[in-house]
Amino acid sequence: MTKLTLGLVQQRYAGSTADTVAATVRYVRTAASRGANLVCLQELHTSAYFCQTEDTTQFDLAETIPGPHTQALGALARELNIVIVSSLFERRAAGLFHNTAVVLERDGAIAGRYRKMHIPDDPGFYEKFYFAPGDLGFTPIDTSVGRLGVLICWDQWYPEAARLMALAGAEILLYPTAIGWDPRDDGNERTRQREAWISIQRGHAIANGLTVAAVNRVGHEPDPSEQTAGIEFWGSSFVAGPQGEILTQAAEDDDAVIVVEVSRERTEDVRRIWPFFRDRRTDAYGDITRRWRDG
Amino acid sequence: MTKLTLGLVQQRYAGSTADTVAATVRYVRTAASRGANLVCLQELHTSAYFCQTEDTTQFDLAETIPGPHTQALGALARELNIVIVSSLFERRAAGLFHNTAVVLERDGAIAGRYRKMHIPDDPGFYEKFYFAPGDLGFTPIDTSVGRLGVLICWDQWYPEAARLMALAGAEILLYPTAIGWDPRDDGNERTRQREAWISIQRGHAIANGLTVAAVNRVGHEPDPSEQTAGIEFWGSSFVAGPQGEILTQAAEDDDAVIVVEVSRERTEDVRRIWPFFRDRRTDAYGDITRRWRDG
Repeated sequence: MTKLTLGLVQQRYAGSTADTVAATVRYVRTAASRGANLVCLQELHTSAYFCQTEDTTQFDLAETIPGPHTQALGALARELNIVIVSSLFERRAAGLFHNTAVVLERDGAIAGRYRKMHIPDDPGFYEKFYFAPGDLGFTPIDTSVGRLGVLICWDQWYPEAARLMALAGAEILLYPTAIGWDPRDDGNERTRQREAWISIQRGHAIANGLTVAAVNRVGHEPDPSEQTAGIEFWGSSFVAGPQGEILTQAAEDDDAVIVVEVSRERTEDVRRIWPFFRDRRTDAYGDITRRWRDG
Repeated sequence: MTKLTLGLVQQRYAGSTADTVAATVRYVRTAASRGANLVCLQELHTSAYFCQTEDTTQFDLAETIPGPHTQALGALARELNIVIVSSLFERRAAGLFHNTAVVLERDGAIAGRYRKMHIPDDPGFYEKFYFAPGDLGFTPIDTSVGRLGVLICWDQWYPEAARLMALAGAEILLYPTAIGWDPRDDGNERTRQREAWISIQRGHAIANGLTVAAVNRVGHEPDPSEQTAGIEFWGSSFVAGPQGEILTQAAEDDDAVIVVEVSRERTEDVRRIWPFFRDRRTDAYGDITRRWRDG
């Protein structure tokens, strides 16, 4: 079994797609040079986070899959002999778009894609306007470095998503993310939100006995409508091991390339001492598929 | 709606049931005197944690529900005008026993019971020998202070249990617990285990936007078989709010009475900014009821 060395690229939007992608490519090379054979990029990494307003012209940012960025990243994956997890604005048809992660194999081919299943809609995060809910289910993607449970941002608040990926044999959960503060949030609120984001994902690692990595955007992006103070993406990309232990974490306020080795042996060992899968009450979980249990 | 002021009683086994229960009663009075109208006790609080060995004579500890301890605690609940969550070794029939939480109302009546659904079996925690898996499902218990999602110890590692209680309208999750270290665990392992235990429960609070309280046993209890070094119960009872924020936490190594006010308004507010229930993909969760998704 191939050893899995994971690289995460956390970056700020550089003002244009060309400059941002150029930085991404440099960072991916850095990660590969440090030994990463799997590199995960942040959510919608080719552009600004464009969901701060509902603006039909933004659909011009979308691209088909395969398309120009999967081609470019596929070539990079092939050159560096690594697997790359990209996150793109997918154009599927006129009026049908998705928030989609694409996995590029070491030979440059597309190993698979995941369409974001849980779509948020909050002030500043108007994703329901842009993205149709995913229709590929919670299906891991098989690659030459392992079976990847790729999920995206808002999915990270749903234990069901993590569980379903784990039950399907995912060896690691990867969350390309774009999450940040309202700059008007006070320090306590910031701490609570950032800690909640970390805690719940550590929880997924623990519940499922596997490694979890979140790759977040960083930096301030203004609100094009100027109605709010924009979003301050909080970075803090991290990797947690199968007991939820933090293996590594990036800063809140700067670009970062993180490389960490992921041990399959740890998953094997932790699941032996904490055999949660053995004792699941599958006979009693049926109501999970209900919206609310109101009688 | 009645204000909810929660008290937790964390204690060590005092060497006999009589002395232990006497201490429990003193602590419950303390909690009530500090304003608690709901007091939650730890798992199997009337005895030592007797599951370190498989010993048929231990079944003598079990009692019917209603029985002597529900009667005594009911009288105490009535006297103090509070609701008490007790955790007992239930004798249901010859050869049929459960690990059962019982909720005593302010009038001393039994408001409901919950039979532990997930039963562990690990070295030192031979619960599958003693307890049949619960057959009452994940059903909250209605009381005069609110709808209580009572779960027990090993349940705390299962996001499904927390979710099902929340979907059924539980306003708070309460986990009577008996968890500890093998005294031979080194410091790093201790930290990882205790932090995992806290993190995953904070995760339940966050995923479901409600308050979570864990009430753990404390102190060292020897292994009657003398084959191991026994268990060092790590205390650390805590309450986390709907963003997973720690509201209060007890020491690792001493008895404690904690009293904290639980705000329903916080749940309302947090669920408005983080409306996770709105976006659940109930159409795609069906495989949660499978043991493993192996094709």
